[in-house]
Amino acid sequence: MLEPSQWFSEVVRDAGSAFSLRIREKLHEQQTPYQLIEVYATEGFGNLMVIDGCTMLSTRDNFLYHEMMSHPALFTHGAPKRVCIIGGGDCGTLKEVLKHPQVESAVQIDIDEAVTRLAERYFPELTASNSDPRAQLRFEDGVRWIQQADAGSLDLIIVDSTDPVGPAEGLFTKDFYAHCWRALDLGGILVQQSESPLYHMQILRDMHAEMQAAGFVASRTLFFPQAIYPSGWWSATMAGKEADLADFRAEDAERKPFETQYYNAEIHRAALAQPEFFRRQLAGS
Amino acid sequence: MLEPSQWFSEVVRDAGSAFSLRIREKLHEQQTPYQLIEVYATEGFGNLMVIDGCTMLSTRDNFLYHEMMSHPALFTHGAPKRVCIIGGGDCGTLKEVLKHPQVESAVQIDIDEAVTRLAERYFPELTASNSDPRAQLRFEDGVRWIQQADAGSLDLIIVDSTDPVGPAEGLFTKDFYAHCWRALDLGGILVQQSESPLYHMQILRDMHAEMQAAGFVASRTLFFPQAIYPSGWWSATMAGKEADLADFRAEDAERKPFETQYYNAEIHRAALAQPEFFRRQLAGS
Repeated sequence: MLEPSQWFSEVVRDAGSAFSLRIREKLHEQQTPYQLIEVYATEGFGNLMVIDGCTMLSTRDNFLYHEMMSHPALFTHGAPKRVCIIGGGDCGTLKEVLKHPQVESAVQIDIDEAVTRLAERYFPELTASNSDPRAQLRFEDGVRWIQQADAGSLDLIIVDSTDPVGPAEGLFTKDFYAHCWRALDLGGILVQQSESPLYHMQILRDMHAEMQAAGFVASRTLFFPQAIYPSGWWSATMAGKEADLADFRAEDAERKPFETQYYNAEIHRAALAQPEFFRRQLAGS
Repeated sequence: MLEPSQWFSEVVRDAGSAFSLRIREKLHEQQTPYQLIEVYATEGFGNLMVIDGCTMLSTRDNFLYHEMMSHPALFTHGAPKRVCIIGGGDCGTLKEVLKHPQVESAVQIDIDEAVTRLAERYFPELTASNSDPRAQLRFEDGVRWIQQADAGSLDLIIVDSTDPVGPAEGLFTKDFYAHCWRALDLGGILVQQSESPLYHMQILRDMHAEMQAAGFVASRTLFFPQAIYPSGWWSATMAGKEADLADFRAEDAERKPFETQYYNAEIHRAALAQPEFFRRQLAGS
């Protein structure tokens, strides 16, 4: 029996499943204009941030998500200089992006400043690069920011958002993807977290269709483990303005001048492998 | 709050985590001479078998485990004819093995006949191939069976066991691996379920060391998702009597004459990719 006073549980209603972490104490709770944010100290996963009841990140396993949201797209782009992150207020993705010396500017646009302030306090290892002169933190509506961005002004857009309900709903639409397409330069890449392959195939199918309908010539899903997210199996989907995204700068990835915990060139190739059921469902058969 | 009357939960004490499935009803409970077996009807995962409190398999996601315990090793071996499965009483691995036309005999040795009888009742799709004339089901001690097997009499040994505590403890030792090595013919392969890369690195390190100490020239871990197992990320580790296990019959895998839900040649290659932390820890650095 999981005593509610000792465990945080996220229930996935449709799947009839739940993932729980044993907690030592609740460190923080705050209702912002956008969402309810909670932070817990857990027994085995370090600190845990929860938004609107959904696990967002833990100290122990956030490296998987943050590395896979950034490095595959960065090593797929030929020369990623201008990067923008929509969402990502915990700054973990920003930190990984800034490890790439070619990146000249990295703008993070999260609607909710509280996420960043709480990350500074409870996940300081993720915000350690925020003072990098290439980094810019903005707290405003990412959809509007992309709409107003100059055409061709970005090489890479990373959509590091919550699930497609609530504040992030507008980030999973053809209209948003069309604005991203316009804001991207030739060779530009969009990458977005795309939920669980086991639980959310409909979201994945829709995303591929909408990305291609918005003008992207190719879209490819990256698969990776993520213990604290529903089903423990997660994905990110890349869309290419020109490139087909199967190739990447493998030699650069092999000689990357920085450390990672999960990502390497081998893992990059591996993350692109499509399970049979995924291949079949994406082909609509 | 997860009402114990409505949810089955498996707690991983060391990790401070738990995975839960919402249940409709308990279909069966039985204390055998070896273990406590429970079967539930769940809301979203079909039927669920639990042994000694640990989730063993569900209707919904067992394809991942069973395909990855069988096809990579079978397509790595040059000509797998004589296969034995230690454990695997639910017959899901046996079913996948029998999909390979080259296999001439497949012996399954599970100490507990009750697992197979319950699989016949609650997971009939897994036991559908049991009447295949190449299949032989034995209910006895797998360690002793391997000890008594003729030297060089097997091409592939699949250790499809519970965790390395309780009845399966003897399956995670150098002594057992040495008997496997002896029972395998030249070119033979041993593959064993090897727990979670996120939770059980020590078990994985020990397994590689013991396999090599027992005489195997190479050992390689396969990584795959498994929602109902601790952390949602699981592994199987292959040991080769001669082959280094990096290559496999990729063309045969691409033209396989049977259907799978997860496995394909691309997934095979992908499953061999080693995360950075794994590579570092296995190298002992």
